[in-house]
Amino acid sequence: MDMAKAKAPRRPRAETPKGFRDYFGADVTERKEMLDRIAAVYHRYGFDPLETSAVETVEALGKFLPDVDRPNEGVFAWQEDPDSDKPGDWLALRYDLTAPLARVAAQFRNELPSPYRRFAMGPVWRNEKPGPGRFRQFYQCDADTVGAASVAADAEICAMLSDALEEVGIPRGDYIVRINNRKVLNGVMEVAGVLDPADPERFEAERGIVLRAIDKLDRLGSDGVCALLGEGRRDESGDVTKGAGLGPDQAEVVMGFIDARRDDGAATCTRLRELVGGSQIGAEGVDELETIAALLAAQGYGPDRIVIDPSVVRGLGYYTGPVFEAELTFEILDEKGRPRQFGSVAGGGRYDDLVKRFTGQAVPATGISIGVDRLLAALRAKGRIGAEAAQGPVVVTVMDRDRMADYMQMVGELRAAGIRAEVYLGNPKNFGNQLKYADKRGAPVAVIQGTDEAERGVVQIKDLILGAKIAADATHEEWKEQPAQTEVARTDLIAAVRRILEG
Amino acid sequence: MDMAKAKAPRRPRAETPKGFRDYFGADVTERKEMLDRIAAVYHRYGFDPLETSAVETVEALGKFLPDVDRPNEGVFAWQEDPDSDKPGDWLALRYDLTAPLARVAAQFRNELPSPYRRFAMGPVWRNEKPGPGRFRQFYQCDADTVGAASVAADAEICAMLSDALEEVGIPRGDYIVRINNRKVLNGVMEVAGVLDPADPERFEAERGIVLRAIDKLDRLGSDGVCALLGEGRRDESGDVTKGAGLGPDQAEVVMGFIDARRDDGAATCTRLRELVGGSQIGAEGVDELETIAALLAAQGYGPDRIVIDPSVVRGLGYYTGPVFEAELTFEILDEKGRPRQFGSVAGGGRYDDLVKRFTGQAVPATGISIGVDRLLAALRAKGRIGAEAAQGPVVVTVMDRDRMADYMQMVGELRAAGIRAEVYLGNPKNFGNQLKYADKRGAPVAVIQGTDEAERGVVQIKDLILGAKIAADATHEEWKEQPAQTEVARTDLIAAVRRILEG
Repeated sequence: MDMAKAKAPRRPRAETPKGFRDYFGADVTERKEMLDRIAAVYHRYGFDPLETSAVETVEALGKFLPDVDRPNEGVFAWQEDPDSDKPGDWLALRYDLTAPLARVAAQFRNELPSPYRRFAMGPVWRNEKPGPGRFRQFYQCDADTVGAASVAADAEICAMLSDALEEVGIPRGDYIVRINNRKVLNGVMEVAGVLDPADPERFEAERGIVLRAIDKLDRLGSDGVCALLGEGRRDESGDVTKGAGLGPDQAEVVMGFIDARRDDGAATCTRLRELVGGSQIGAEGVDELETIAALLAAQGYGPDRIVIDPSVVRGLGYYTGPVFEAELTFEILDEKGRPRQFGSVAGGGRYDDLVKRFTGQAVPATGISIGVDRLLAALRAKGRIGAEAAQGPVVVTVMDRDRMADYMQMVGELRAAGIRAEVYLGNPKNFGNQLKYADKRGAPVAVIQGTDEAERGVVQIKDLILGAKIAADATHEEWKEQPAQTEVARTDLIAAVRRILEG
Repeated sequence: MDMAKAKAPRRPRAETPKGFRDYFGADVTERKEMLDRIAAVYHRYGFDPLETSAVETVEALGKFLPDVDRPNEGVFAWQEDPDSDKPGDWLALRYDLTAPLARVAAQFRNELPSPYRRFAMGPVWRNEKPGPGRFRQFYQCDADTVGAASVAADAEICAMLSDALEEVGIPRGDYIVRINNRKVLNGVMEVAGVLDPADPERFEAERGIVLRAIDKLDRLGSDGVCALLGEGRRDESGDVTKGAGLGPDQAEVVMGFIDARRDDGAATCTRLRELVGGSQIGAEGVDELETIAALLAAQGYGPDRIVIDPSVVRGLGYYTGPVFEAELTFEILDEKGRPRQFGSVAGGGRYDDLVKRFTGQAVPATGISIGVDRLLAALRAKGRIGAEAAQGPVVVTVMDRDRMADYMQMVGELRAAGIRAEVYLGNPKNFGNQLKYADKRGAPVAVIQGTDEAERGVVQIKDLILGAKIAADATHEEWKEQPAQTEVARTDLIAAVRRILEG
């Protein structure tokens, strides 16, 4: 081995950490525009913005990671001054926007209005195994109402979610907000004999299995769920998943619940009321669903936008009452070209116990979280965004390095006229590189002025959009005839560029 | 001690970690609006947004924390899987937006256009001792051009900074962008005998003392700086600061540099040329300043906006050429009520070596960073922001809990008319609490409809702004006569509210 080489200090790797990524240009702009539109809806509903810091104490965050199915999921955490005499607190990056809200609601309970409606948008971090399309930093966009026990708050959140989806460009009919109620499910559990109101801890394992089974309805179908409710299920590979051990009558109650959706909310509620029988908590849950449906109907949010659907169980983790989910109902093509439903883009519900952790006092709260990346992907799939944002600036080329002041004057004039413009700042020697640069920038127009043109008081205007079209479509003869490049008086620069931009 | 009490689990503290804070309502909105305006200027100049992740490898970040005067300053860092067989990379929160840009420029050097103009806005984190008004998470707002060796790129950055300041509401005359050049300073160091072009490492300690001395001109005055250039300085408490050990002739050259600013750029450059004498690097630096001044003058950026000022040395750390600083020139009152200049709100310069760390190839780069919090504070001090954003939503009160659907219909109608509105979602029993809530929300109007009003098809509209004014100013008699509350037909609700909002 060459000793000189061995001694040379290794250069740092220019890489994002595993599971992190950068966002360039339109990816940033499009997300921002979508979030701005959502924020405008939230604001109109009286919600105030809140921006908490990215860093919280581990103590304040607690262990409320929503998805219990993934035990690897964790937080990025470190200890303050670990090597000092007095090591400090453990700190961590927030894993969602709800835990910081609970901390804020407790910390500022005397200053904040009550109820407190707030929205928050920003990155959250999860220390989980990265995978294709799964990142360890991603955006969330939440709205919550803290301190309102009334289900009118839940109804409001659902109406607002519906408005927000339409505002960003998902037309009515392409989405549905589905509502269920954890209390109804608890009522059903009671009837099925796996919840004892006098001893709520009992049967917890069985209820966990029931919940996870219901959540797999899409994938396993009714028979698969039924097997999991009973003795268990053997999959194709021969692996056995333990069942909840329910008898046929008990399982039937649960299956009836999943299947309780009827044509309209009233009929669904009637069916649910049958299912929960004498359970007090179950009856309360059905009452709440009826109230929500009535409040929404009075504002014109009918079942074309918001429905009661008992098959929604997603994220039932810390929820204590109504739960919501927004699903996009149009089809997209998956990676193998097969059509499939787009699926869920937002979820939430009522969680009455999160603030209590800090204060000991129960504080009712309900809210929604929009999956920013999924919603953006949906808008791109529908062609709602991406077209306009892609256009780059007008590029003024540099033919004569000594006349940089003239070129900068041109871009100054263009900008003053509201036209995005830049001068080429690389080495101007190779003119071909300048046109390649303009192409890479997505520039619609290149402006060219050599010594000769300067003396004659003119500039060359190159229409790069037309030029690209001709290069792609035209025969050589047509190509020569097409005026993709024109000469105009220097004083007509702005007008000529504007003519091309306005097509 | 009571055993039952001792056993109770301690509740988590509802607190932000030390040095972190939350931003509520208008604080979020106002910052966002300012950043949106700056982004529009950057975009018009052809700069593209870039959003890197908050987390980088420690290796990629390097040790480039700009302020060498504070050795306590550090990063928040942790190791991936420290307890596993194969501990992972050390990761850290970014401490600025320049280090991630250098990493991106190296990582994507084959994909990005060259030159690459990018802007970035977002939080950065510093693991330093928090103090009053000093937080460990704060916003930066940067624009940089990577891959342009020409000082036209520096001139463009300065012009853009000037435009950005005016766009957010700092009028011409209330700010000045000052430009200096590290190369000129190096030329002066050469003439003063503390820089040997043949042995650049020599005299490094002395140059460090000279730099820090110049930086203290504001505080110590000419005599103090002079003492630091020579033998050293004893302050009022008797403490001695070691000097650079320059002789009187050498010190005079440095003092001449600090004092080289003349009435116009040309005269300043003439004076600088005298000072750098035969130094090649010094002459190159003066040439660059002249070119920048000429390019800016051609676009109309005269010394009322951008000046050459040799006393600017701030942040000379990794800079290799032109350096810039934007200062607000109006006075504000400090905490003791004394007038003082607002001071610096942005700084930057050319740093040609940051990308080289990764690739081994020098990549020229230049950029600016705006101090978001300071600029916001300036705009607040000037009354440019804060007035409008403070107004809360119209609050529809709940007189009759069973008629929630009616109240939600009212807010629905108000929102459909573009008016921010919310229904009271707390316990409606105590009506006084509802008005207190409306007050806390900064509501301009409260809408009231009891059973009686509902039967008669009317609503009460309470003008809370007028009400507050009357309560503050009026005698009891006037108070009774003022129509701060009026009854209108339910069908006139929107029109009546709008009349009040439009004053």
